[in-house]
Amino acid sequence: MTMDRDALKRAAALRAIDFVESGMILGLGTGSTAAFVIEALGARVAAGLDILAIPTSERSAAQARQLGIRLESFAEHQRIDLTIDGADEVEEGTLNLIKGLGGALLREKIVAAASDRLVIVVDHDKLVPRLGTHTPVPVEVAQFGWQATAAALGRLGSTPKLRLATEDHQFITDGGNYILDCAFGPIADPQRLERRIEMIVGVFESGLFVGRSTAVVMASTSGVAVMTPAERKLP
Amino acid sequence: MTMDRDALKRAAALRAIDFVESGMILGLGTGSTAAFVIEALGARVAAGLDILAIPTSERSAAQARQLGIRLESFAEHQRIDLTIDGADEVEEGTLNLIKGLGGALLREKIVAAASDRLVIVVDHDKLVPRLGTHTPVPVEVAQFGWQATAAALGRLGSTPKLRLATEDHQFITDGGNYILDCAFGPIADPQRLERRIEMIVGVFESGLFVGRSTAVVMASTSGVAVMTPAERKLP
Repeated sequence: MTMDRDALKRAAALRAIDFVESGMILGLGTGSTAAFVIEALGARVAAGLDILAIPTSERSAAQARQLGIRLESFAEHQRIDLTIDGADEVEEGTLNLIKGLGGALLREKIVAAASDRLVIVVDHDKLVPRLGTHTPVPVEVAQFGWQATAAALGRLGSTPKLRLATEDHQFITDGGNYILDCAFGPIADPQRLERRIEMIVGVFESGLFVGRSTAVVMASTSGVAVMTPAERKLP
Repeated sequence: MTMDRDALKRAAALRAIDFVESGMILGLGTGSTAAFVIEALGARVAAGLDILAIPTSERSAAQARQLGIRLESFAEHQRIDLTIDGADEVEEGTLNLIKGLGGALLREKIVAAASDRLVIVVDHDKLVPRLGTHTPVPVEVAQFGWQATAAALGRLGSTPKLRLATEDHQFITDGGNYILDCAFGPIADPQRLERRIEMIVGVFESGLFVGRSTAVVMASTSGVAVMTPAERKLP
């Protein structure tokens, strides 16, 4: 018997919250997988788990609030014990990530950067030998001069596309910025690429998360596996 | 006979627009010095100079429009021939800059980065042996999680202060972000510091402009001098 996709995500979410302990400040991700994590967390909180959470989007905040999870902000806590979030691609071995296809990339990265540990929950089809295999790298940029910023990102070897919300309207992030989806193809050195992207004037953050994952919980039809980062073997 | 401060700025602005030629796409800075440049430019345009300009603020756009200077945007032009702007500190020799005390740092940096040449107009009292001598480095950051971003900037050796518009309200940039004014004291290696600041998650841009100046036009009571960048001599 095989589980359906949602049942798999639910099983992986349950495994991920094994990392949570009473007294923790938790970062809550955004997206369909994160929604299962928040759901599972709500059940544990109802059963007595004592945590505080910092959400990465209004959507996650609303869901958490409804489940009785206490929310806090960076005004009270500048460090987070553990963040659980999804990802769009996970690199085999290193567990480097591409995130941000959902549009909450900046907040997700700020929360991840402030976290002692980052646990990622994904389906097995997100695992790739090289980042960039299936998905572009989302880059959050200033509205002002985005065309010049796109030209600079193009010079790094990508084909940046302005993300649209509808046929006629740009997608606007929570922070009021644009997203350029930059197709690079398979990325040989994500750390170097991240640094080069961040140095472009007009760029806020890229969706490359390098060296940030503590563990990846992966659901497949054969069950749930937990991976920890290994040094990437040279080819 | 000594000229007053405004007369000096006007003289320096006139010298700076000697760099302008018909047919150019010009970047227009923001601030009191830039206002004198735009004024001088308007007079030249009235006399037949044919240029297009991309402004870095609504204020500069309004002044230029009033003077009959034709405005364009990055939608039409991704490269700018020449930008003329002010600065808050200029490092002797290298002509590296601190900019952004006026709050238009992000747009000024985007326009400068897209410019083939950057000409800076300042009073002589802006010249310092090391950047950071008199002024903090303004850093534009996301509102979300700014406290965590400030903590990270503090770990680089500064004392970040959230810029306020009034006693009770934060200053908000054109891009909808906050400014952290980061006092570092005299900065030994601005290029390294800029790189480290840009890599902090939550940071949009810093007010450090390294290796971007083509020339600095400096007004003092003894007249107007034009400086070009020299390699910094090691101590």
